[in-house]
Amino acid sequence: MPGISNKARQMPFSPIRKLVPYAETAISKGKKVFFLNIGQPDIATPKNVLDKISNHNLDVIEYSHSAGFESYRKGLVKYYNGVGINLSHEQIIVTTGGSEALQFGFMSCFDPGDEVIIPEPFYANYNSFSIMAGVKVVPVTAKIENGFALPPIEEFEKRISLRTKGILICNPGNPTGYLYTKEELEKLRELVLKYNLFLFADEVYREFCYDGKQHHSIMNLEGLEQHAIMVDSVSKRYSMCGARVGALVTKNKYVLETVMKFAQARLSPPTLGQIAGEEALNTPQSYFDEVIEEYVERRNTLVDALHKIPGVKCPRPSGAFYVIAELPIDDADKFCEWILEYFEYNGKTVMMAPASGFYSMPQAGRNQVRLAYVLEKNHLKEAAEILGKALEVYKDAEMVTAKIPTL
Amino acid sequence: MPGISNKARQMPFSPIRKLVPYAETAISKGKKVFFLNIGQPDIATPKNVLDKISNHNLDVIEYSHSAGFESYRKGLVKYYNGVGINLSHEQIIVTTGGSEALQFGFMSCFDPGDEVIIPEPFYANYNSFSIMAGVKVVPVTAKIENGFALPPIEEFEKRISLRTKGILICNPGNPTGYLYTKEELEKLRELVLKYNLFLFADEVYREFCYDGKQHHSIMNLEGLEQHAIMVDSVSKRYSMCGARVGALVTKNKYVLETVMKFAQARLSPPTLGQIAGEEALNTPQSYFDEVIEEYVERRNTLVDALHKIPGVKCPRPSGAFYVIAELPIDDADKFCEWILEYFEYNGKTVMMAPASGFYSMPQAGRNQVRLAYVLEKNHLKEAAEILGKALEVYKDAEMVTAKIPTL
Repeated sequence: MPGISNKARQMPFSPIRKLVPYAETAISKGKKVFFLNIGQPDIATPKNVLDKISNHNLDVIEYSHSAGFESYRKGLVKYYNGVGINLSHEQIIVTTGGSEALQFGFMSCFDPGDEVIIPEPFYANYNSFSIMAGVKVVPVTAKIENGFALPPIEEFEKRISLRTKGILICNPGNPTGYLYTKEELEKLRELVLKYNLFLFADEVYREFCYDGKQHHSIMNLEGLEQHAIMVDSVSKRYSMCGARVGALVTKNKYVLETVMKFAQARLSPPTLGQIAGEEALNTPQSYFDEVIEEYVERRNTLVDALHKIPGVKCPRPSGAFYVIAELPIDDADKFCEWILEYFEYNGKTVMMAPASGFYSMPQAGRNQVRLAYVLEKNHLKEAAEILGKALEVYKDAEMVTAKIPTL
Repeated sequence: MPGISNKARQMPFSPIRKLVPYAETAISKGKKVFFLNIGQPDIATPKNVLDKISNHNLDVIEYSHSAGFESYRKGLVKYYNGVGINLSHEQIIVTTGGSEALQFGFMSCFDPGDEVIIPEPFYANYNSFSIMAGVKVVPVTAKIENGFALPPIEEFEKRISLRTKGILICNPGNPTGYLYTKEELEKLRELVLKYNLFLFADEVYREFCYDGKQHHSIMNLEGLEQHAIMVDSVSKRYSMCGARVGALVTKNKYVLETVMKFAQARLSPPTLGQIAGEEALNTPQSYFDEVIEEYVERRNTLVDALHKIPGVKCPRPSGAFYVIAELPIDDADKFCEWILEYFEYNGKTVMMAPASGFYSMPQAGRNQVRLAYVLEKNHLKEAAEILGKALEVYKDAEMVTAKIPTL
């Protein structure tokens, strides 16, 4: 039989993939599992969007323009103006989710062997998109002690080589929830100009900023017009991950022209998702106000409950809907399996994402987990309680060697 | 400013891209343009599908499973059984159009520098997907004299090198409309086994077979279970190109496991498109009967009209909804520009796709065009008449050098 490619062998499995059978077994044994491992919000999609889909007047579900419907791109211009980003609709290419924007952006800007510096922990799929483009990820580790703030700019500079072509950030961050300050972005701006790099920013959590803090887009960094490439998505903003509609935004016309070649090859982003996306631009502000209020309460509920558990460290982030927590254990991969397989409290347990999948240094973040606060507050509280009880009885060495023979 | 990648420089623009401004100018001057250049059917999407979208009962437009909704994959199993292909739902990974299935399949099976043999003329975007995966396309030219039948298998064999990892066919073919016979597929089967290659088949036009001829899937070639990878799509079958729902189908579990890693990286195929795709499985046979009858009449209308034009050669293909026509000219790229820019008959003109974009040998197919019969019969007849009138007055050398200074 012919063999699969070496490139494909390098592709990581989803970091939570190997936990899924444990969760399924737990459920089949009658345990209730609180899923804190995924970024699928439980918040309803705006009603105007759901109604718009019902009231579609299509006769043929046709391709759109490869860059997305022009009316949608013009609508997006108004949306961006509203958040302080000025551009034209020709500077937006609608993509199949933020994922495709990153794939096309990486393939347009980076050749196999080129290097991109990414602060870690980072969204696990950045590794996948890098492998797809043949790009080498060079990590700079952000520290939990600093709440995952931007690592010192000297640490970036140390990692710049002749093959370095870009830097990628996620702001606010998945999985850290960290919201970069204007000052941090200014430091990146200087570095990018000094070494003539591309600066990619995944800004899909733009609306999810808390405690009165403000989001700053790389699109507004002075002098970066030819360097800045922003990745966006409707997935989280309007709680419609399944629409698969995102965008690549840049003022660099060579990049736009190039990304269009990739966009033409796959013909068009999803038509129905774009209809949803265009209508979503009419979502009333009250929707966002309620969602933000809800997420702030959830974050506080979860972080406060985690802080009560002895030995647990967890910064209180200002954005997105994730926290990274450090647990008093050695190996979160093993612990996350154990809690599903062997632990229950009142018949319930918790699924978490081990943070190792969000680091590219093999030993980094081994004692950390990512928790998504996409559940109701009382469920979050209960989940944290279960975690606390589990940590009381869990002892790395003996329980793991005794009960989990191969890991 | 940082430069784009070398990989991106190799990406071709869409073969019709440079014609678009000529078509726009023609329209702005008041000419009516018949668009025979694109594969966007004008046939309505089945009513049950449009109704299903209206009657969705979603509260949250969530991600699906990365391999697609299980209910949809189980529905697809029944559909495939109905066309004589037996498999299980675990052997289907739902993708964002057939395009993504090819991208994931190529990246899973081929490394940069590997070679894939493709009979040409072929769907232009195969070049793009190959460049994205770093794969070298090795063409074998099919001849218009033979109606674009499979080239002699010795021609394939001559092109096999140590880097050859696969063969890709499109059946029925875009842009040729050619439907491979059982015997042709058997020859490919033997070759694939002899050299231990992957055999990819793009079977998205499976339903569009005419004159009582039958489609044969590579999924039924004996002994190819570990070699055959089939690409599928709802786009043409149900006239819903904008749904962006396709599938990669194979019995090779290593390929499936590998493709899943790419599928997980992009999270999920479009949810709304999958709802449409699942409902489309309930489309009554009468829909297809009417569509096939309509396409047969259109094909005959177009081919008969082309045969009346002196010097035009055009096989009458048995599948899909395209024909390749050879015109009595030297350079179809120039002619397709000229007919839009300088010609009109009764205030009307025609947009065609020059076939050069479907060949990878630079001089092949220079005097050929691809015509899609996705217009009403009377429009097709009129378009062919305009083409005939244009060819009466067009003289390659002087008109081109005189009127089109740079090409």
